[in-house]
Amino acid sequence: MQKRYLLAPGPTQIPPEVLLKMAEPMIHHRNPLFETVVEEVRENLKHLFGTVNEVLIFSSSGTGAMEGAITNMLSPGDAAIVVRSGKFGERWAEIGRAYGIRCVNIDLPWGDTLDPGLVERALKENPDAKAVYTQATETSTGTLFPTKEIAGIVRNYPGTLMVVDGITGVGVLPLPMDEWGIDILIGGSQKALMLPPGLAFAGVSEKAWAFNKVSKIPRFYFNWAKERDNLRANQTNFTPAISLIVGLRESLKILKEEGLDNVYRRSEMLARATREGAKAIGLEIFSKNPSPAVTAICAPEGIDGQAIYKTLWKKYAVTGAGGQDQLKGRIFRLATLGYADKYDVITAVAAIEFTLADLGYEFPMGAGVAAAVTCLKDL
Amino acid sequence: MQKRYLLAPGPTQIPPEVLLKMAEPMIHHRNPLFETVVEEVRENLKHLFGTVNEVLIFSSSGTGAMEGAITNMLSPGDAAIVVRSGKFGERWAEIGRAYGIRCVNIDLPWGDTLDPGLVERALKENPDAKAVYTQATETSTGTLFPTKEIAGIVRNYPGTLMVVDGITGVGVLPLPMDEWGIDILIGGSQKALMLPPGLAFAGVSEKAWAFNKVSKIPRFYFNWAKERDNLRANQTNFTPAISLIVGLRESLKILKEEGLDNVYRRSEMLARATREGAKAIGLEIFSKNPSPAVTAICAPEGIDGQAIYKTLWKKYAVTGAGGQDQLKGRIFRLATLGYADKYDVITAVAAIEFTLADLGYEFPMGAGVAAAVTCLKDL
Repeated sequence: MQKRYLLAPGPTQIPPEVLLKMAEPMIHHRNPLFETVVEEVRENLKHLFGTVNEVLIFSSSGTGAMEGAITNMLSPGDAAIVVRSGKFGERWAEIGRAYGIRCVNIDLPWGDTLDPGLVERALKENPDAKAVYTQATETSTGTLFPTKEIAGIVRNYPGTLMVVDGITGVGVLPLPMDEWGIDILIGGSQKALMLPPGLAFAGVSEKAWAFNKVSKIPRFYFNWAKERDNLRANQTNFTPAISLIVGLRESLKILKEEGLDNVYRRSEMLARATREGAKAIGLEIFSKNPSPAVTAICAPEGIDGQAIYKTLWKKYAVTGAGGQDQLKGRIFRLATLGYADKYDVITAVAAIEFTLADLGYEFPMGAGVAAAVTCLKDL
Repeated sequence: MQKRYLLAPGPTQIPPEVLLKMAEPMIHHRNPLFETVVEEVRENLKHLFGTVNEVLIFSSSGTGAMEGAITNMLSPGDAAIVVRSGKFGERWAEIGRAYGIRCVNIDLPWGDTLDPGLVERALKENPDAKAVYTQATETSTGTLFPTKEIAGIVRNYPGTLMVVDGITGVGVLPLPMDEWGIDILIGGSQKALMLPPGLAFAGVSEKAWAFNKVSKIPRFYFNWAKERDNLRANQTNFTPAISLIVGLRESLKILKEEGLDNVYRRSEMLARATREGAKAIGLEIFSKNPSPAVTAICAPEGIDGQAIYKTLWKKYAVTGAGGQDQLKGRIFRLATLGYADKYDVITAVAAIEFTLADLGYEFPMGAGVAAAVTCLKDL
């Protein structure tokens, strides 16, 4: 018998009531039954994204919505500022390059705190930049970026959009689009939304729609204006991932019932307990400004981070994540996203202790869970 | 109490064992558990598509794979021949237009039989055409196209690819890619594959991969070469729609167990019984060369096709489809795709009888189901 615990930064655990909803007989998308689902989903997505504008729904991975945030807003040869401080910052630049965008990259060492002043300087030096592309939290390094402050700066540039990949941010921390001045906010189903992967989201401001009107990159599947027009009639441009949207209705309801402030507080406390648990056994947190979504923990001297991640998975039944690209072997990651509670974190910290004991690391056994439990008393 | 019967040309019914598989706890995609699933799926997709080459898997609607069959193969300004004889033929042309392709359209009245000679002539008149884009069966009109014959013609043109939208063809009728010379064959999850929408497929020939090497349309999310490289390692380029792929493993197993020849025979017989049932109560079949996937039935004189479709759905619990675009109000459609058996067809024909009696059409009540039952005795 091996019960398995999924604590990866996406996909995440799915509540049983959501799994069961998605297992109901299929319904057709071009009829009122489905339209009622979409209508409810639209309202709850607006609430979650903190916007009065439509939040578009795409049947794709989150990357599909990231691509659309370039192809629906810019034209070949346009300049854009990209914050690159992890795998997903690099993805913005890769997509930009694929579509002929002149990317001005703010290259920050992975895991560093992002100084909003760097964005301000880049904007001053590149007044023609049509957009700033960044992350709310960078999943590869477990770093929180100062979205509110950056949005506050970009807001003063009428010719520049503030685009945030919130794939591991939406539903984890507040990202109120309209209040902060985020023009495009991207989300994905398999993170805090507690669903399987296969849906992506984009909240889009009025300012962004004006950019869309003059954007000249060709597009078809990810045609945002057509998607918006369909959504207003509770429909989608093409056959959507119906079962996931049916599940989305349920998971948005669960988030709403808990209350978004409580959801954010829970993620924050779970991440803090993960960090304190790790620190109590002498481990270092990789990021200088840790994310509430996912915690990147440095492998101790002499122990391979991939071995930790693999032992956690194979022997101790906890699925976290390893390091990606330049961080491979140096870190391992555990998420506190979505359908995760205090016992998940205690489980994860216990599994880390078991794993590190196996791998020959010396530490006061039990100190990790003790620290985690202490942090979690009031959750 | 109203039991509902889904007989639309996508989404289609999902076998309960597939629904339950998809309701199992989520697994992570970057680990051996998922890779075992992909390995099995790859083999069974090759079998279904009749090819030794990889069949790519995309987390998108079928249209995403159609787009990729243009953006990964052609360059702006290239010429392509498009068979336009329904909504989905028009979609090829729309995608081509969006990406700067010079589409040479073979415009055939909707529902007509496609003479392969028309394709041959178009190829002779446009020797620079880089591809022929067509459908195996045109869902909007319920028409079967002569894929084998067209592929046999295109095969003689080394500079031209044969691209088939088989979204309502794969798993319904034989479309052996390698044997017939189909270069790209597109499929979708929500049709004969008995899954929710959200996955698309593309079998790709060696000839097509050579076109891919010189193709210059920008792409990122639908980058086929990267997807192929990942697939060879039982992986996907981006986070895939995991639950659908887990379901796909199950549905491919079901198809394999029935045996593809039996599956094709079943679809053919179910479609024939639907046609005979309709004809027995005086209705006309819209298509001159009917598809085994979906039957388009003409609304009788003086009765609105949309009223038939809506009454079928609302009062008689059978979800079919209405007519699209120019056929709206003129036809209604019932599918015999995927998880459909003889009782589904008898149910559908009975519901048509109930509906038409309601709408004031005069006919010998019961004659439709009698004809259908007679056709289905040996299935």
